[in-house]
Amino acid sequence: MSYAEDLGKQSKKAWYMLSTLDTATKNEVLHALGSRLVERKDYILKENEKDVAEGKESGLSDALIDRLSLSEARIGGMADGVRSIAALPDPVGAVEGMKRLPNKLLVGKMKVPIGSILIIYEARPNVTVDAFALCFKSGNATILKGGSEAIHSNRALITVIREALEEVGVDRNVVQFVDTTDRTVVNELLTLDKHIDLIIPRGGEGLITFVAKNATIPVIKHYKGVCHVYVDDKADLDDALAIAVNAKTQRPGVCNAIETLLVHEGVAETFLPSLRDKMDEHNVSLRGCDKAVKVLLGIEPATEDDWYTEYLDLILSIRVVADIDEAIEHINTYGSHHSDAIVTNDHVRAMRFLQEVDSAAVYVNASTRFTDGAEFGLGAEIGISTDKIHARGPMGLEELTSTKWIVFGEGQIR
Amino acid sequence: MSYAEDLGKQSKKAWYMLSTLDTATKNEVLHALGSRLVERKDYILKENEKDVAEGKESGLSDALIDRLSLSEARIGGMADGVRSIAALPDPVGAVEGMKRLPNKLLVGKMKVPIGSILIIYEARPNVTVDAFALCFKSGNATILKGGSEAIHSNRALITVIREALEEVGVDRNVVQFVDTTDRTVVNELLTLDKHIDLIIPRGGEGLITFVAKNATIPVIKHYKGVCHVYVDDKADLDDALAIAVNAKTQRPGVCNAIETLLVHEGVAETFLPSLRDKMDEHNVSLRGCDKAVKVLLGIEPATEDDWYTEYLDLILSIRVVADIDEAIEHINTYGSHHSDAIVTNDHVRAMRFLQEVDSAAVYVNASTRFTDGAEFGLGAEIGISTDKIHARGPMGLEELTSTKWIVFGEGQIR
Repeated sequence: MSYAEDLGKQSKKAWYMLSTLDTATKNEVLHALGSRLVERKDYILKENEKDVAEGKESGLSDALIDRLSLSEARIGGMADGVRSIAALPDPVGAVEGMKRLPNKLLVGKMKVPIGSILIIYEARPNVTVDAFALCFKSGNATILKGGSEAIHSNRALITVIREALEEVGVDRNVVQFVDTTDRTVVNELLTLDKHIDLIIPRGGEGLITFVAKNATIPVIKHYKGVCHVYVDDKADLDDALAIAVNAKTQRPGVCNAIETLLVHEGVAETFLPSLRDKMDEHNVSLRGCDKAVKVLLGIEPATEDDWYTEYLDLILSIRVVADIDEAIEHINTYGSHHSDAIVTNDHVRAMRFLQEVDSAAVYVNASTRFTDGAEFGLGAEIGISTDKIHARGPMGLEELTSTKWIVFGEGQIR
Repeated sequence: MSYAEDLGKQSKKAWYMLSTLDTATKNEVLHALGSRLVERKDYILKENEKDVAEGKESGLSDALIDRLSLSEARIGGMADGVRSIAALPDPVGAVEGMKRLPNKLLVGKMKVPIGSILIIYEARPNVTVDAFALCFKSGNATILKGGSEAIHSNRALITVIREALEEVGVDRNVVQFVDTTDRTVVNELLTLDKHIDLIIPRGGEGLITFVAKNATIPVIKHYKGVCHVYVDDKADLDDALAIAVNAKTQRPGVCNAIETLLVHEGVAETFLPSLRDKMDEHNVSLRGCDKAVKVLLGIEPATEDDWYTEYLDLILSIRVVADIDEAIEHINTYGSHHSDAIVTNDHVRAMRFLQEVDSAAVYVNASTRFTDGAEFGLGAEIGISTDKIHARGPMGLEELTSTKWIVFGEGQIR
């Protein structure tokens, strides 16, 4: 049996136990993990230092080194996160819509864990703990494949997670760690339909595309965010300015930040100069369509590629549009169907935008930065799905469950 | 632009209109289609005859010729089906769980159509009409790829569907027909992520595996049914006999019929001989494990492969198990996670079976044959999903929708 198959098989075997485990025991594990992360911080930090040192040696960017680096405060944050997941309600076992059929069969849908979930992610070691905790609470076994830059940190965190499991007497195989940088192992995991039920890839375009192309197992993609704010000519321009600046600059490196601003031609000449002043204050460089370039002399012209690009940086492309139709068409054509906002006081246009923009989250008069599990009241999230199937937008505990039809009979036949 | 890309692009374009179409207009189209199917029956039957003649010539089995053949009664059945879909509630636009966040944002989840759906199926032409009607009612554009044996029938049915659309003034491109037997077109469709949102393959193992392997678009598999009845030693054996016979023989060629019977060793010697008598009456041939062969002298021994096999025929494999644990393990190992039943009067075992069997539908004391959208009260179904993601078990109109987060603000920023 190959290494990958062995991981998958053990994960599924452990899952059958986990799928029916009571909530109290699951919470006990999460609390044990919260304590243990703090107790074992020296060990975790020592292992993390190895990754950071190797990362610096191999020339990783400062941004990546920052994502990779742990500190006492960050470990404390992980522990708090785990405890807050313990405090969330357990979605497993709830039965919806139980009804009696004419033949007296009782039929309903029970929320059940999905199974064994393979999570593939990049440099941030805190994903290891978050993803395990969310999947575990919702009764799912995890197979974790983090970025090779974080392998020492992840190995240490998995060790601590397994210590917490063993402390409570739960099978350590409910979490599996892909402890290799050999890519053929990942390739094999992507096709182990018999043992793995779902793959969640989190990361850059290359990773997501690779997984979608090679997996035979269902995938929920957490893809890029090419998000927009559309400033209508019926907008309150002060609100529009505040929303655009917030959505671009409050945290430019995340998926719910905007990349493109669309503005109605009726207000372009009033709005864009004040936008430029504010964006200058935040060191945002602007790129514009032909019309925008005429209003904002000196800014760089945007190319066709710009409209598709997730900068994740202090860059904003600007397009002047004739009307809301052109705005909606632009968003549906070039966007990534993540988060998009209209700023307007026109009710009919607001409702049209809500209905016609094909995105996971659609906003009227608010910043796109709110697309987040905690902000939306899910408690925590494993990420933001850009797929339309199963879960769209922030994925919390509920979205980590499947359903099962349960049927109580008294000997009924058809 | 290739033929496949053109189909995809036109489908997505037509979908944007369909996604916001009101319920009354959608129902008008479905009623127009119901009438037109009956009016145009001579044309449809004439085209169907070509497929049947070609099928006979190329040596299709009688069962396949039967699936392929239309008649006035079958066309009437299609028309009734379309009208009953018109009578079902439209799931689109409902908003769930709208709540006010501390910052006064109003946030909720709206049910929205999925988009453009590619449906790949085999010989039965009635799927063309059913699949269109269900997808259309739930606001989804369809790209239909039926089996090449049914191409004349399907072309005629699509013509009639488009006549109904044009009668009401709805874009005919909301249904697209893959009017070719060239397999490279299908291969290309499987990767058109930009235009197609979901693929539903319905058919044999080869088709499903091919689609899962080659698609980069999300797939909801409608895979085989290796279903079981487990007869516990605490069962009412009369009920057990009726359920086993019904689940095997009432319609052996469908996915929710059973392939394997598991029986507790404590009742094997009492139960199996009466089972054999009944199965003999229905011309079912039996295959057994070592223990079953000793009780039912003369039956064929089952091989390891038998436990995995969907016979879709009057064949039943029988395994004697030591207890419920062995029964559950057998089902989770060899089954296809479709529909499985326990017959028992022991409450604890019934509840364990419900929780531990990892299948789309789990039954206590009833036949597996009830796994069906109409039986479960969904009104109609596009098929039975064997995946755990998005929709599990019978897929009706609700399961053909996605969600979109909608957010109403008053200028909120983060």
